[in-house]
Amino acid sequence: MSLVLDPAAQDLLFREAHTANAFTDEPVTEEQVQAIYDLVKYGPTAFNQTPLRIVLVRSAEARERLVAHMAEGNQAKTSTAPLVAILAADNEFHEELPTLFPAFPQAKDLFFAERPAREAAAGLNAALQAAYFIIGVRAAGLAAGPMTGFDATGVQKEFLDDDHTPLMVVNIGKPGEGASYPRSPRLAYDDVITTV
Amino acid sequence: MSLVLDPAAQDLLFREAHTANAFTDEPVTEEQVQAIYDLVKYGPTAFNQTPLRIVLVRSAEARERLVAHMAEGNQAKTSTAPLVAILAADNEFHEELPTLFPAFPQAKDLFFAERPAREAAAGLNAALQAAYFIIGVRAAGLAAGPMTGFDATGVQKEFLDDDHTPLMVVNIGKPGEGASYPRSPRLAYDDVITTV
Repeated sequence: MSLVLDPAAQDLLFREAHTANAFTDEPVTEEQVQAIYDLVKYGPTAFNQTPLRIVLVRSAEARERLVAHMAEGNQAKTSTAPLVAILAADNEFHEELPTLFPAFPQAKDLFFAERPAREAAAGLNAALQAAYFIIGVRAAGLAAGPMTGFDATGVQKEFLDDDHTPLMVVNIGKPGEGASYPRSPRLAYDDVITTV
Repeated sequence: MSLVLDPAAQDLLFREAHTANAFTDEPVTEEQVQAIYDLVKYGPTAFNQTPLRIVLVRSAEARERLVAHMAEGNQAKTSTAPLVAILAADNEFHEELPTLFPAFPQAKDLFFAERPAREAAAGLNAALQAAYFIIGVRAAGLAAGPMTGFDATGVQKEFLDDDHTPLMVVNIGKPGEGASYPRSPRLAYDDVITTV
């Protein structure tokens, strides 16, 4: 075996894990979200900038406001998932950078003085953290249903501000009946990886 | 415990894992890269678009060409890492979409007919896959050193084409002496996560 990760962990995080489109009623607790964050916060980002910000949509009133901005095909599952999280990139992450990356506090002014540079970095690095978060949801024995089908401007106005760009909305819970589609094919190694 | 993932796996993938800046001489084999890909290819992307493409820089000649485009502070480690991978987004991923997402073959024309929409989707989803890849490197008992400090236009011209956007360059190997900096601080739960 070329992997040292325990096969059960491989299954839990990747091989047996599926995007869920239906969930049981079992709630997702604050303790579970805390445990997920306490694990995945260690995932690497450039200059440790960690620009991901998360809005947990727990109240019925907020859920309704969110569902109104989801694509039609995503509305039913977003209405009924035990927990829904809005994942966003903080384009003003540089304010925390001297604290987050004490080894090189100059990075804030040297690389991130301009907003376009910050937006590009926040978009990439928050996406890395979104993937870590999905892995973390699975590490908690839950299923994630990440979605990009929503009105981004609407979600931003409703739940965020001009400095925070929504990346995705994630339904979270225990998978219910008929939760996942059959596994779609994946590209072969040689279609993805070339050697020079 | 709110996580069901084995604590040893939590340590391997997140808690004890560090970005490496120095490596031992031990090679990274083709079998290891294959095993990493065979695991992380299952990580979710929108419409299963899986736009990540990887160039493994193995020859001394190619390594030299790559190092010339790295930021000065990244040159020494990129010269000496056992393996270096260029991670890129395929902006023409939609060509494979009817095969990759047979449940909804219309997605290709409905959502991805225009190049800007493809670039945005490829950037986000290849970044998710880059994070899965970093997790996969760690699952193989190796350390990753992801870097965004390089001349993207130069790397694209040298190793890719107009349809492939480089996202990051990753050094891979067993961590050597002084490989990692002390752990930088992370944001507190309440600084990242709000509830509505």
